[in-house]
Amino acid sequence: MSKKLKIGLFGFGVVGQGLYDITVSRHLNLEIKKIAIKDASKKRSLPSELFTTDRWEILNDPEINTVIELINDAEAAYEIVSYALKNGKNVVSANKKMIALHLEELVQLQRKHDTALLYEGAVCGSIPIIRNLEEYYDNELLYAVSGIFNGSSNYILSKVFNENQTYGDALRKAQELGFAETDPTLDVGGYDAKFKVCIAAAHAYGLFINPDDVLNIGIQNLHLSDMKYVSEKGQKLKLVPVAKKRNDNEVSIYVLPKLVERDDFLYNVENEYNGVSVQAAFADQQFFFGKGAGGHPTGAAVFSDISALRYDYRYEYKKTLVEEKVDFNNEEVIQVYLRFNQQRLLQELPFISIDETFSCKQYHYVVGSVRLADIFNAKDAILADGAFIADTGKYVAHTETLAEEAVCCNID
Amino acid sequence: MSKKLKIGLFGFGVVGQGLYDITVSRHLNLEIKKIAIKDASKKRSLPSELFTTDRWEILNDPEINTVIELINDAEAAYEIVSYALKNGKNVVSANKKMIALHLEELVQLQRKHDTALLYEGAVCGSIPIIRNLEEYYDNELLYAVSGIFNGSSNYILSKVFNENQTYGDALRKAQELGFAETDPTLDVGGYDAKFKVCIAAAHAYGLFINPDDVLNIGIQNLHLSDMKYVSEKGQKLKLVPVAKKRNDNEVSIYVLPKLVERDDFLYNVENEYNGVSVQAAFADQQFFFGKGAGGHPTGAAVFSDISALRYDYRYEYKKTLVEEKVDFNNEEVIQVYLRFNQQRLLQELPFISIDETFSCKQYHYVVGSVRLADIFNAKDAILADGAFIADTGKYVAHTETLAEEAVCCNID
Repeated sequence: MSKKLKIGLFGFGVVGQGLYDITVSRHLNLEIKKIAIKDASKKRSLPSELFTTDRWEILNDPEINTVIELINDAEAAYEIVSYALKNGKNVVSANKKMIALHLEELVQLQRKHDTALLYEGAVCGSIPIIRNLEEYYDNELLYAVSGIFNGSSNYILSKVFNENQTYGDALRKAQELGFAETDPTLDVGGYDAKFKVCIAAAHAYGLFINPDDVLNIGIQNLHLSDMKYVSEKGQKLKLVPVAKKRNDNEVSIYVLPKLVERDDFLYNVENEYNGVSVQAAFADQQFFFGKGAGGHPTGAAVFSDISALRYDYRYEYKKTLVEEKVDFNNEEVIQVYLRFNQQRLLQELPFISIDETFSCKQYHYVVGSVRLADIFNAKDAILADGAFIADTGKYVAHTETLAEEAVCCNID
Repeated sequence: MSKKLKIGLFGFGVVGQGLYDITVSRHLNLEIKKIAIKDASKKRSLPSELFTTDRWEILNDPEINTVIELINDAEAAYEIVSYALKNGKNVVSANKKMIALHLEELVQLQRKHDTALLYEGAVCGSIPIIRNLEEYYDNELLYAVSGIFNGSSNYILSKVFNENQTYGDALRKAQELGFAETDPTLDVGGYDAKFKVCIAAAHAYGLFINPDDVLNIGIQNLHLSDMKYVSEKGQKLKLVPVAKKRNDNEVSIYVLPKLVERDDFLYNVENEYNGVSVQAAFADQQFFFGKGAGGHPTGAAVFSDISALRYDYRYEYKKTLVEEKVDFNNEEVIQVYLRFNQQRLLQELPFISIDETFSCKQYHYVVGSVRLADIFNAKDAILADGAFIADTGKYVAHTETLAEEAVCCNID
């Protein structure tokens, strides 16, 4: 039978209000008792006695057994969530940054204090990817999890590529619609997507990774010449986080813009939609598509977590418990398109092999194979140059063979 | 902690062998103790002492706590599954026909005997649609669940439309590859898709429906002229089962070929792949894509169910327990394309309004609005005429308004 939930809600922004809309339209065994907000002066649509600016009114209320954390500030969120978990309250959060930065500790807290932290809304909005990794693929061998995890940058790319809007106009529109984070670098720089793919990797591979060790370059430096290159090839450009197995023991994780072919499902994921592609040994290719941003879609994911808490559901992180552990590293070699301004960038970013070069008065580009660790080390130089780098999506077969090929190329 | 499963397996065809491959490649707390087969003379890849032709060796073995039913014969499957459930064994089945025909009773048996029946592999192979309807959308208001549920007919349509193969050649190829049911009418006539959508409707809407009351017309009568019509419009043809809310109290369910636009996700679902589209009030449009047929994909779904039984997972059919019940009927009005030979078919199938008519020496077609119940009643006449009918996918707004429009049309 379902458990009565008394809820303390932190944050009443787009997602918090979306959640409230969903909650009141259902007749479930739950009650939102108190809502903690930062700004008491803001006009609210609900009675003022429901609100408080004092977090302890929720955290120290023994009647409240469930905390929903939907605030922006990752550090404050961490304090709230860890305090709640330590004090016997179950928690639902949609704060990907906070979860990605503290996941290993948060899992330990759950185990130690027999409480649950659910966060479907933190990864790809309405798409139930965490639940599926956790439950359905719990014993599947997963080759790769990738996709479009950030609705805001995808919205911008759609407007820029399909409607010829400028990058700036598209970004402003995304912010107006509530898709974008307050700090746009989180979205367009690939940080948001990185936090999400790190969380997914915990469920897909049993890995807890420090996001600082993971490469992320976004669409900040997208230039007309890059758009021309992509369009001429009949492709589209998407910002794609990837977590994939290199072999039985190693996993690569990175976020880069990617050139996407017409027959790829990601090709048709437009605007604020997200898409998650899962490549599994037996289930084969799987694809999940849904709204990745906005109050109601994310609210729906949060609501589904709340609903699951009524039945004492919790993540088991089963893949962290298996014996055959995998390691994360940046040894993977991928083929990239790199458009740049200063030739000296190629000294900072050593290519293993170069397949195409192009130069004109305004800019240069190369297409070639490069190690993730080398992109990681050259990130500042790439961004400072105004360069744009994108994964071509062409599969690079074997590092060993490649090194040999690279030698050949260099001799040529 | 996980429970030790001692498994009795019924059937060792494509899916059974796929399942066995998956099972031996994992180190889990489970054992396949016995495999019941029909034909003892067939050469098997495993030791002969693992096999039996006597079902009771499994059903009456008190050590076996889990039955996996993967046989073709729906009635024999029903006997096996119901006996097992009554005798304290949990069951995993992939037999959509058996489940669709007996679901209400099978749910009662589970509740009465405190046993579990899981059947993810029965609906859309590797796509975890039942688990998601059951767990993730358990409190969502679902407007519609539809998609491509039959890999075999989709494979045929892909070969016919994209590679100019004949219908007969494509069907034979599908059978060789093990995608098609032994009786092709099950696939190409839309029966298989109907069984699956009826099962999905139990989880999406809490409805137990007799499949005999649900309209299904397939691609049997597909003709060159129909392919020409579809191609000229830049569309594709897919066989699409639909379960959708007409209003707060009524649900429509049907299976028909459908004209699909280029921007529809189903447009890119080719060959043996399946796609499930879920339209939800808050989560909005969601789409799931994966392999719908073949030993390993379906085996992966069955395996995921087995894995879930280790943690005593069971479906709760939560939507059958809510107070606001919905009813199924065939009152929905849809717009269809009907290509036919004999004018008298239009007397058997009364259109509410006709939007286009076309005639040439060889055939005629009309595009217009028609009630599902009227198609249902005219099914034999449609098939006998050699006619081909397809949902145009154009939304028909209100039955009332339409009736008025129809009067106008008739006057015209």
